[in-house]
Amino acid sequence: MKFKLITYSLSLVCLLAGCGVNDAKQASKQASQTQTFPHTVPKNKPDIPLSPAMSRMFDYSATRPQNSELFSQFKYTKLEGFDYNGGDGTITRRDPSRPILVDGKYYIWYTKRHTEVPPVGSKRAELATDTIPSTDWDLAELWYATSSDGLTWKEQGVAVPRPPKPNPGHRSVATPDILVWEGKYYLYYQAFNEPSGLKGDHSTVVASWADSPEGPWTAVNRAVVTPGKKGDWDQNLIHDPMPIVYKGKVYMYFKSTYNKWSDNRSNYHVAHGLAIADSPLGEFKKYPLNPVVNSGHETFYFPFKEGVAGVIIRDGIERNTVQYAEDGMNFHVDANISMPPVAGGAHTPDAFTNTEYGRGVTWGISHFINFGEKRPFHTELLRFDCDLSLDVHEPLFKSPNIWLKPDIYFEHMGLGNAKKTMVERSRQAAKQSEQ
Amino acid sequence: MKFKLITYSLSLVCLLAGCGVNDAKQASKQASQTQTFPHTVPKNKPDIPLSPAMSRMFDYSATRPQNSELFSQFKYTKLEGFDYNGGDGTITRRDPSRPILVDGKYYIWYTKRHTEVPPVGSKRAELATDTIPSTDWDLAELWYATSSDGLTWKEQGVAVPRPPKPNPGHRSVATPDILVWEGKYYLYYQAFNEPSGLKGDHSTVVASWADSPEGPWTAVNRAVVTPGKKGDWDQNLIHDPMPIVYKGKVYMYFKSTYNKWSDNRSNYHVAHGLAIADSPLGEFKKYPLNPVVNSGHETFYFPFKEGVAGVIIRDGIERNTVQYAEDGMNFHVDANISMPPVAGGAHTPDAFTNTEYGRGVTWGISHFINFGEKRPFHTELLRFDCDLSLDVHEPLFKSPNIWLKPDIYFEHMGLGNAKKTMVERSRQAAKQSEQ
Repeated sequence: MKFKLITYSLSLVCLLAGCGVNDAKQASKQASQTQTFPHTVPKNKPDIPLSPAMSRMFDYSATRPQNSELFSQFKYTKLEGFDYNGGDGTITRRDPSRPILVDGKYYIWYTKRHTEVPPVGSKRAELATDTIPSTDWDLAELWYATSSDGLTWKEQGVAVPRPPKPNPGHRSVATPDILVWEGKYYLYYQAFNEPSGLKGDHSTVVASWADSPEGPWTAVNRAVVTPGKKGDWDQNLIHDPMPIVYKGKVYMYFKSTYNKWSDNRSNYHVAHGLAIADSPLGEFKKYPLNPVVNSGHETFYFPFKEGVAGVIIRDGIERNTVQYAEDGMNFHVDANISMPPVAGGAHTPDAFTNTEYGRGVTWGISHFINFGEKRPFHTELLRFDCDLSLDVHEPLFKSPNIWLKPDIYFEHMGLGNAKKTMVERSRQAAKQSEQ
Repeated sequence: MKFKLITYSLSLVCLLAGCGVNDAKQASKQASQTQTFPHTVPKNKPDIPLSPAMSRMFDYSATRPQNSELFSQFKYTKLEGFDYNGGDGTITRRDPSRPILVDGKYYIWYTKRHTEVPPVGSKRAELATDTIPSTDWDLAELWYATSSDGLTWKEQGVAVPRPPKPNPGHRSVATPDILVWEGKYYLYYQAFNEPSGLKGDHSTVVASWADSPEGPWTAVNRAVVTPGKKGDWDQNLIHDPMPIVYKGKVYMYFKSTYNKWSDNRSNYHVAHGLAIADSPLGEFKKYPLNPVVNSGHETFYFPFKEGVAGVIIRDGIERNTVQYAEDGMNFHVDANISMPPVAGGAHTPDAFTNTEYGRGVTWGISHFINFGEKRPFHTELLRFDCDLSLDVHEPLFKSPNIWLKPDIYFEHMGLGNAKKTMVERSRQAAKQSEQ
């Protein structure tokens, strides 16, 4: 009988692998009696034969989302204080940095585009001019804003403008993140030298630094993290730099898109790599086993316990997961999440303190790209709240269930025509079965 | 240097494990040169050092959701033909069976409650009477409806009423699923003998059979799948029976809730077991390594390729995944999904044909529990469409992205107070840092 074979074979494996006599006795004892999984869930993986599912359950940091420090629902709130020109597509704010707290004020940096007309779109990038943007992040600058509560913000002005030609970023600078290191501030961001969309979305990561979050900012005007050599997964571009201070060094996580992206967009893959430097301006050495995360579009990383956690969203086979690496490199899936922040910048007070035990995240700033009733959309910043923190225990955020109103399911965008095809198919099947 | 150590140690492991000379040479060669992950994703796992993330990526049935037969988005459509008394909570239809196609008509069976008043709720179950229901599925019967397109339905009447005392289900019968076997039809469903909520949600699984989908139905009036013995994970209840014909037998997947559920609801776990019988009325023998799935509230299973796939929703650390078991027992996570059907009954023409290569699912019937502007909610049936099928290739359903309108994120239910706490916390942190 197959079931018995499974439990007997456990003893066999144990003997072949050279387990001690006691282990073998134990395994033999298990094989000789039926041990059903108990009604009370053990604290640790029990020493009984388990299905792969039940064995796996004990490999997560908690056996239920309700008890997992790395599971959360997300609540979103509109920000006060930003003007978007009535949502006509001429003003966009997106890709916020982490909020950092300095002397009673939160600071964020972000991509701001304020152009005469909305973007023409990446597929018509050849129509872009010095004043007409191709994408939502073309012809952009880095701006910053401050707040005393994370909800109401005052835009302070430009932090990093586009530098003059031929410096990297003369076409657009976008998608900043912040690092605080020995009393100085470093902004890392994408630098575009041509309208994005022309050859894909090619950019390098450059940096500016300042003695104060208010600036003035000194541009380094060279790439600090560069695309790989021809043939490497990250040959074309480095996006979304996100530094944390870990083990005394700067750990820079970044995204790249690969798999012939520029030839056939429909095949593109997204993954995340890691580059490590002894100090903020490099040299950043890429981890040889990159990518370290196989999924995720605009994700965010933060120190957590001894390691690093990441909220991995949208793209990839491990989309919408929270992942954890005890060493900052070897990530595994630890929780499955819903409706996570897009382009989240998490308030993480210990991101730059070289903490040995990261505390996690309770809020941050993210963006939605699809504001406005119809295209052209623009992008707005918003706040997200969550409980991915060791210091907060908010049962509402830990519930595995979100009960959206039914109308949301009926109306949600983008699947209209596909649905019609499906309904017609079931109608045809019924007709055929009548004959 | 740490990076080099990692690749060297691969050779060492290989030598210790007794690999052949060629393998060792290969490993040595790999250690002596940097092999960056390539820009073009290989078809199979490449023979180079990989991070756990990239190694894992090749263990899924596809490296991207877009190429995965077990990834889909879901589109929902209201059904025509069902009356809900203006949504006043007195009529509920929920927990639909698979739709089956017989002579040009789709048939579904479902829980129908039609009571004078809405349910009082499980926490006030002691107020329930012979005419006042405790939960939404108390005082219910099994009804059925037919359709020629899966969208417009005609309710045909009761299929299985509550049997007289003391037969199982005399208080309520609910949550049916259908099996077709050698020209006969079998309904499996939950049988309640007291208002659910009094002692949890205790029920057994009973069955009725008929020669035609139109009935008449003969009640077996005994449990066909029973709770486990005291101390077993499934000691209290068996829910959500879902049979398929696999390897010539009836494979019955079912849900149970465990971990002291009746003592402390807040600790409850949900998992799924498997019971196998040679014929529809048993004896159903439980698989000794149950549970086979560690997550999922109202999930559904279907034959897929050589094995069985399940859409696992809401509860558990592997919530919102599609899982696959090549042998119907050893399930692993194969894709992460969003907004999946609640209580889905999938139209699966090969669920009962003893297929050796299941084709998958393109549509089914599910339910939403939260219809109505405010509590008491009631439950309505609806249709879902998807592409979890080998025979359909619908790119819209394969996109990993859902772009919900921003208002949906701002307004979604249930997290209001938790959010306030979080915002207050960030305000306080800013104040403290000022001093």
